[in-house]
Amino acid sequence: VVAVDANGADGGPELVAEGARRSGVDVLLFGPAARMDGCAGRVELIDAPQGIGNRAEPARAVRATPDASVVQAARAVADGRADALVSAGSTGATLAAGLFHVGRLRGVHRPAVAVLLPVPGRPTLLLDAGAGVEARPEHLVQFALMGAAFMGAAHGLERPRVGLVSNGEEAEKGPAAVVEAHRRLAGLGEGALEFVGNVEGGDLTAGRADVVVTDGFTGNVALKLMEGTARTVVGAVRGAIRSGPVSALGGLLVRGSLSGLRDQLDPNAVGGAILLGLRSLAVVAHGGASADGVSAAVRLARRAADERTVERTAANLEAAGALRSAATGTFGA
Amino acid sequence: VVAVDANGADGGPELVAEGARRSGVDVLLFGPAARMDGCAGRVELIDAPQGIGNRAEPARAVRATPDASVVQAARAVADGRADALVSAGSTGATLAAGLFHVGRLRGVHRPAVAVLLPVPGRPTLLLDAGAGVEARPEHLVQFALMGAAFMGAAHGLERPRVGLVSNGEEAEKGPAAVVEAHRRLAGLGEGALEFVGNVEGGDLTAGRADVVVTDGFTGNVALKLMEGTARTVVGAVRGAIRSGPVSALGGLLVRGSLSGLRDQLDPNAVGGAILLGLRSLAVVAHGGASADGVSAAVRLARRAADERTVERTAANLEAAGALRSAATGTFGA
Repeated sequence: VVAVDANGADGGPELVAEGARRSGVDVLLFGPAARMDGCAGRVELIDAPQGIGNRAEPARAVRATPDASVVQAARAVADGRADALVSAGSTGATLAAGLFHVGRLRGVHRPAVAVLLPVPGRPTLLLDAGAGVEARPEHLVQFALMGAAFMGAAHGLERPRVGLVSNGEEAEKGPAAVVEAHRRLAGLGEGALEFVGNVEGGDLTAGRADVVVTDGFTGNVALKLMEGTARTVVGAVRGAIRSGPVSALGGLLVRGSLSGLRDQLDPNAVGGAILLGLRSLAVVAHGGASADGVSAAVRLARRAADERTVERTAANLEAAGALRSAATGTFGA
Repeated sequence: VVAVDANGADGGPELVAEGARRSGVDVLLFGPAARMDGCAGRVELIDAPQGIGNRAEPARAVRATPDASVVQAARAVADGRADALVSAGSTGATLAAGLFHVGRLRGVHRPAVAVLLPVPGRPTLLLDAGAGVEARPEHLVQFALMGAAFMGAAHGLERPRVGLVSNGEEAEKGPAAVVEAHRRLAGLGEGALEFVGNVEGGDLTAGRADVVVTDGFTGNVALKLMEGTARTVVGAVRGAIRSGPVSALGGLLVRGSLSGLRDQLDPNAVGGAILLGLRSLAVVAHGGASADGVSAAVRLARRAADERTVERTAANLEAAGALRSAATGTFGA
């Protein structure tokens, strides 16, 4: 069973309900009952009209509104009524609700937001895409192991190749935290992780690694920059094609092929942001997701739970000796 | 007069010599005389066969090889025989030669590598693109003022809009150094700088600012990521067009328009990386630059010198009260 928060999507709770129905997955749907008529079959509706907006300070909002749909959905996971959490609302609120009610996986310093980059033909997982803004070496090491476990479980990759984002391929390139993380990752040994070394900005779209690890600041800037650059280039291509009559005629002939491309580059198709490092998986669909986008997010959460992503993550961290020791913890565990 | 280092370009010293000739600028050309026959007119040739490769540790190589072409070219600027420095070789070696022989501008903490992003229609200056890997708030403030002075001088912008790269628009978003830099930039007042606040990754290609400021690690990753993403998207467009006979026919009709687009997105056309914060301007043409790319770099250096970029930078820093005080300096000044 997947717990789904229906509030927060640009298309409204109706669209999320439709996506939940299409997924074919057993769903507990938390949202305004009045706007989700006709939920039946595999979708069970729980009336939870209150949402948490993007503008709110997430941790505070989650504490202040225990009845908010995303908080109720997180509690359903914590209680064992559901195995995974999906929201099309705020990533921050979903993360905060997950942290407070589902909790961090034992030994994890800090959860990370992971995103499948829309690279045609070969999905590449980028993390952290913005759960934090700075990362210590031990955070980066855990991100690497968490990302590898996810790509192994949910995407069936036998030995996901993991790269560390830096400003050069050499081990000594980058800020001190990156250099130290490189040293630790290289020291894990191939049994624990297939570490391919540093990857540069240009490698993120080139398929050099299946998982690319960075701090949340760089990851957030990189993700939005990729989207912006792709949008700008596609727009420039469209503008160039329309710039003259001969080329506009050619444009009619290439239109079909280019629309297929648009789907490949569409963040909706990939399933959303994945929160790793909690006691169960959470997926945040793109706020502008279509019903199919929501459906893909629900199915991804279901598959990740079936493939025991969280258990594999715990085993990976333990095998690599990368668990946070209780003594160094500041709160929770 | 512009001092040009002819070693290090992928196309060899011949190509750099040809670029220098095409620029129509008075040039002192440092390189292997045997490979640059026929230099005459406005190009004066100085035999300097030794180059510094990309693999060398720049500071060490510059000290160890005083006869290297880039070192001789930097000395020509220091001696007053030339007003600006151009190289198509290693950015690191050019920066090191500039630091040792030309020197930092008084009151500058650290020079920055600035790059004009190939955004169609509106050049956006990104800095630092990799002179350093970490940046303190005072560095980011100086980058903002240096970038604004350059865009004012070399691109004729009356009041360049300056943005600070972060993971959200709000002033409190980002790592501590970014939050503090935001506070200081906002406090400078509109007379000193047109600060538009934080810009996100997606804004870099959207023309929201004329100058975008970040640390050298993020800037390096962002620049290479933009290039990689543009390459991937253009490749995907090409592949999609070739995927069927109708669309391939259409492809023949749009080819002319798309080749114009390629020029707009071509880093060669923009002129190279610009080193800001030295006592004179230095430009590093892309290693794979064409002769026209080298020529554009030489003309950019000439124009920046004519427009007194360095003097304007010094005035900007002084007016904003952002000069490094002698007491906090660690060496030189």
